Amino acid sequence: MSAVRRWDELTRTELADLAPDALLVVPVGSTEQHGPHLATGTDALLAGEVARRGAEAASQPETILLAPTVAYGASDHHLPFGGTLSLRAETFQRVLADLLASAAAAGCRRAFLLNGHGGNTAACAVAVAEASREHGLLCASAIYSQLLEPGSVAAPVPGHAGLFETSLVLAVAPERVRLDRARPSPGGAARKRLRGLSVAEPGRWQELDGFTDDPSAASAELGAELLETCARAAAAAFEEVAALHV
Amino acid sequence: MSAVRRWDELTRTELADLAPDALLVVPVGSTEQHGPHLATGTDALLAGEVARRGAEAASQPETILLAPTVAYGASDHHLPFGGTLSLRAETFQRVLADLLASAAAAGCRRAFLLNGHGGNTAACAVAVAEASREHGLLCASAIYSQLLEPGSVAAPVPGHAGLFETSLVLAVAPERVRLDRARPSPGGAARKRLRGLSVAEPGRWQELDGFTDDPSAASAELGAELLETCARAAAAAFEEVAALHV
Amino acid sequence: MSAVRRWDELTRTELADLAPDALLVVPVGSTEQHGPHLATGTDALLAGEVARRGAEAASQPETILLAPTVAYGASDHHLPFGGTLSLRAETFQRVLADLLASAAAAGCRRAFLLNGHGGNTAACAVAVAEASREHGLLCASAIYSQLLEPGSVAAPVPGHAGLFETSLVLAVAPERVRLDRARPSPGGAARKRLRGLSVAEPGRWQELDGFTDDPSAASAELGAELLETCARAAAAAFEEVAALHV
Amino acid sequence: MSAVRRWDELTRTELADLAPDALLVVPVGSTEQHGPHLATGTDALLAGEVARRGAEAASQPETILLAPTVAYGASDHHLPFGGTLSLRAETFQRVLADLLASAAAAGCRRAFLLNGHGGNTAACAVAVAEASREHGLLCASAIYSQLLEPGSVAAPVPGHAGLFETSLVLAVAPERVRLDRARPSPGGAARKRLRGLSVAEPGRWQELDGFTDDPSAASAELGAELLETCARAAAAAFEEVAALHV
Amino acid sequence: MSAVRRWDELTRTELADLAPDALLVVPVGSTEQHGPHLATGTDALLAGEVARRGAEAASQPETILLAPTVAYGASDHHLPFGGTLSLRAETFQRVLADLLASAAAAGCRRAFLLNGHGGNTAACAVAVAEASREHGLLCASAIYSQLLEPGSVAAPVPGHAGLFETSLVLAVAPERVRLDRARPSPGGAARKRLRGLSVAEPGRWQELDGFTDDPSAASAELGAELLETCARAAAAAFEEVAALHV
Amino acid sequence: MSAVRRWDELTRTELADLAPDALLVVPVGSTEQHGPHLATGTDALLAGEVARRGAEAASQPETILLAPTVAYGASDHHLPFGGTLSLRAETFQRVLADLLASAAAAGCRRAFLLNGHGGNTAACAVAVAEASREHGLLCASAIYSQLLEPGSVAAPVPGHAGLFETSLVLAVAPERVRLDRARPSPGGAARKRLRGLSVAEPGRWQELDGFTDDPSAASAELGAELLETCARAAAAAFEEVAALHV
Repeated sequence: MSAVRRWDELTRTELADLAPDALLVVPVGSTEQHGPHLATGTDALLAGEVARRGAEAASQPETILLAPTVAYGASDHHLPFGGTLSLRAETFQRVLADLLASAAAAGCRRAFLLNGHGGNTAACAVAVAEASREHGLLCASAIYSQLLEPGSVAAPVPGHAGLFETSLVLAVAPERVRLDRARPSPGGAARKRLRGLSVAEPGRWQELDGFTDDPSAASAELGAELLETCARAAAAAFEEVAALHV
Repeated sequence: MSAVRRWDELTRTELADLAPDALLVVPVGSTEQHGPHLATGTDALLAGEVARRGAEAASQPETILLAPTVAYGASDHHLPFGGTLSLRAETFQRVLADLLASAAAAGCRRAFLLNGHGGNTAACAVAVAEASREHGLLCASAIYSQLLEPGSVAAPVPGHAGLFETSLVLAVAPERVRLDRARPSPGGAARKRLRGLSVAEPGRWQELDGFTDDPSAASAELGAELLETCARAAAAAFEEVAALHV
Repeated sequence: MSAVRRWDELTRTELADLAPDALLVVPVGSTEQHGPHLATGTDALLAGEVARRGAEAASQPETILLAPTVAYGASDHHLPFGGTLSLRAETFQRVLADLLASAAAAGCRRAFLLNGHGGNTAACAVAVAEASREHGLLCASAIYSQLLEPGSVAAPVPGHAGLFETSLVLAVAPERVRLDRARPSPGGAARKRLRGLSVAEPGRWQELDGFTDDPSAASAELGAELLETCARAAAAAFEEVAALHV
Repeated sequence: MSAVRRWDELTRTELADLAPDALLVVPVGSTEQHGPHLATGTDALLAGEVARRGAEAASQPETILLAPTVAYGASDHHLPFGGTLSLRAETFQRVLADLLASAAAAGCRRAFLLNGHGGNTAACAVAVAEASREHGLLCASAIYSQLLEPGSVAAPVPGHAGLFETSLVLAVAPERVRLDRARPSPGGAARKRLRGLSVAEPGRWQELDGFTDDPSAASAELGAELLETCARAAAAAFEEVAALHV
Repeated sequence: MSAVRRWDELTRTELADLAPDALLVVPVGSTEQHGPHLATGTDALLAGEVARRGAEAASQPETILLAPTVAYGASDHHLPFGGTLSLRAETFQRVLADLLASAAAAGCRRAFLLNGHGGNTAACAVAVAEASREHGLLCASAIYSQLLEPGSVAAPVPGHAGLFETSLVLAVAPERVRLDRARPSPGGAARKRLRGLSVAEPGRWQELDGFTDDPSAASAELGAELLETCARAAAAAFEEVAALHV
Repeated sequence: MSAVRRWDELTRTELADLAPDALLVVPVGSTEQHGPHLATGTDALLAGEVARRGAEAASQPETILLAPTVAYGASDHHLPFGGTLSLRAETFQRVLADLLASAAAAGCRRAFLLNGHGGNTAACAVAVAEASREHGLLCASAIYSQLLEPGSVAAPVPGHAGLFETSLVLAVAPERVRLDRARPSPGGAARKRLRGLSVAEPGRWQELDGFTDDPSAASAELGAELLETCARAAAAAFEEVAALHV
């Protein structure tokens, strides 16, 4: 049985005791198209799974409070593909900000948004900055896959619904993968950009048919290995934030 | 194995096929204090459970698409008790409106917000009206416990964290109940109001210590019976909405 | 001469004296199409009229402060018919919330939104909850026609611009009725829904041609009787809220 | 009987006929403190009265549609005095913008906001510009008292609850004046500013005790004369806007 | 060397010393089409130039803090002409309100928005009122050209991209004028309106081809004279506000 | 004379010709405290300077349109230090989004936000994504100092008001530096975080006294070298975005 505590399984009394010295971890996902081969709940599933495993792998799992996964994210750019239930950027930003504000009201002093969807990144940054400034909450955020050291795993740079995510889902919930529908993205390789430069290209997701690289070589074995690496990286990040003075 | 389909387990391709003729059911909960004896995730847990069982009990379960539960609701009135992760009323309203708008964009023509938290009611009404008016979505909402005929169950009028909800959680996830902490609410019986009159009394939740009636007599047996009745009522409501012409 | 006091006829000095022990009653209406036979100002007219008569009929009319009627409501669903001056749902909600916040700032401790338009209901609920929570205002709301006991009047369930409202206007301001234009709604009888279920059907108002049931049998006599019953029901509701401890 | 038509007394059918060739006049007021001697409903009363009389005095009164008075305005600066029911600036701006947008949707092509409260001016300007730009509505606004030529009336420059407004209310609704409470404003004469310069001084309304100049010399006779002059000025403004090509 | 201090050239330490006794002057411009003959940056250029010269001409220039010019304003009505970078009315209003709020937080007690664009006026008024009411800031605003006495300059009433502005730019930055492209506006003379009446006519800017009167007679000599007059008027306005008690 | 064109120096006619094939570069700065030794306008100054030099250094400078610098940014976290004129995060986000929307309306197809302030990053990301999705604008953003390759310059990682920025300002506008007030930040070295992890620590800027590392060794020579490197990096980024297909 896990030492990690889930917020929604505890009473207000227990949470009042735990909150001040705990690290609140909020998995943040999305419900959006992931190509023709992967289920739409991928990001929420994986953010929750990495958060739980990372918390269990941390040195003091009993000091981590795991909040319910935020299942819907900022996915308006995927609406044209169908299968997507999305919050507008402004709404989603307020969701995260409100959650962190109420976490502070509930006595929390440290919070961590563990994010599984690139489109959520700016909202996480805004919410974290606001919670720190307005509510005195020590606040961190990360996309779980970007906690990995480059070259540390036998997979290309994590994209969207590519080899990386497809393998992870095969390891966690294989019934959510239609591997026979997987094929290379028609949009070509991810474009290398100059360091520090980010570009939003209209129509790029359409060129890619909504997913990156080549998911067809995905395997549960690779997924298990990636999952383990991600969980260790998340654990290290949780430990780093838990150790900060508040 | 259930015939009910979960949105997050399907691909965009499958959803594009199913959406036009399906009823999208979105369970809507909250993460908020439920007295000293009941876990904070009660409303999200029960809305999701009744939605799933109701969908399975419906006459054509294969036409129901079950969306991920909205785990956070409008619970600002419970913030003073701690243990509460809440969205402001305005934020929460936008969450529901955005989800219904993207459901319409994904090809859905019928949607149902199955709500487990009284504080969410107005936001559900606003979102449903907007989605119908702006996006042509046939849209319904209900608090699952208010679908019951009065007198049809051996429990007092469903309140908050009282005998009704505590029994339900004992039936579904008993590890979330601290029955030894349950006692009658110090705030007295629910106040009878004139028909059609609703009143918001400042400080009333404090008088009640955050829960209604007397959860101490809750039992898993009663919960199982209530759950069955709720699921049947939800199934009937789903069938009614699924049968409407669009 | 009435003992009821109108806010807009009093000075700030008088209001400062009266506000703490008074019940502020705010009639809330709309300006929207009411079929081919009834004037667009119906809801504001009737909410104001029932509020005034209810206040006069209450046991302590001198403790009631009657605010100016909110003449414009949330009527976007009637825009396609013409004749409608509407506030968006979000705007209207802020109107009510701002009014209640300033009522609290003016020293009021009890307020009652007496609503005459179904489309305003959710906004009333949100505003009342916010005012109670944020400003400590004891706050109530009701649609005046829903305060009636079913079967207590010789008219069908109150709808929109049907027999009920048309009769009321005949009794109050007959020059606002074109009885020769009244005919049964082409959309058929109001649909019976399962208890607790609310449904927003796109196009339903168009099917009904913008009004319910059959206004053609309306009469001033019936209207006078309904008005008396509504006023008594409003008086009882005012008394109940005025008696609550603050 | 007046040839002026009131929007709220007409049906959607009649309004659909009239709207395209009519000038919609919306009186815009406030409900706010007017010193110890004048009722809080002064601005709404006078805006409505001048609008009605101006419409009747216009050369083609039958082409004017008089909307219900907007009874609540942007009065947050008067909240500290009590007696004030105010909309925040942002809310009030949306109210006017929404009304003009729905007027355009109802077939109107010309609209006029006749304003009785200085604090509403900026919101009127924003709403008028938006309605013209976004909805193609020919749109005008004016504070009724600023339509007067300087020196054309035997009263000081119109202020707030001073000689000008107090006299007008004595002429229109004398029961709303407590002349025995009227005295000169303790804040001294209105400050002359450089042409084109507007200044908001914190605490200035407090220095003035919430009203300008000296209302104690107000009379119904002066009020009747002012009212006549204002109505003629409003009539001229309505005619000018009605004559513009759309 | 000027005695006027620029906010952006000073450190926080210096500003903390200066702010309480200084008048903060914020030039407010726009970046919008100015006909075929004048550069789009005209309003920002001129507001900044008049502000600087006005500050230098004031009796105590060392007490004036000149903020960076707000280069983008509310110009949505000019979007159809191209060349326009505009903020929506609501955004722009928040920009000014936020700047004044932070000026108050930085210790300022007096602020002046010197505006160069008519379309910014309402937003200036709202921001100034809010800053005075919410933050206790003594706050003024003016369009610089409206500080002039009528008849005091040898040019028609200042319009948009007409003789007045074109001459000013010829004096300040002649490389921004294409005098060979200047011609009379095809829309005819500015329409005289009744005193106190403002009208927004859809399509009027198109009739005018986006500029008023006749810029073709503009000259650097006239511009230099206008500039001097505007600067003296601004200086007088700054002195008046600087002398007010806070 | 530079081949780079400034938007505000051109007419609408010229911009209509240039916009479709140009890259619009918008320098984005802030006006905020930069320690006791550096002027508050640093970020706006440097973003504008690097943008201009980068544009001039690009291979086709004549295809670059330089917009006026956005002088005010999201600096609420610096308000406690004084000297800061800030936009709230939500306002600032709307500013950038509105500017990009109107750039698209003005015929631009490519835009680049060259940012000089870390606190602006999330707003840039949101605006860029929205403009790409909603308006079909190819859109890029970068913090200019993060375009540098690590180790490519003889200065520590660029911070806030440290050696890097202080040297740059010494090279560009030495009158804005008080080198005698420069000293090492009392808050110690920048904290190394795990890769991919971002943390907002309440009170951290106070510990640092509002600036990073040690500005006391800054020099104009180093600044000139850094400026040259930054300009080359910006030029490369501009070229990359200008070459993308639209």
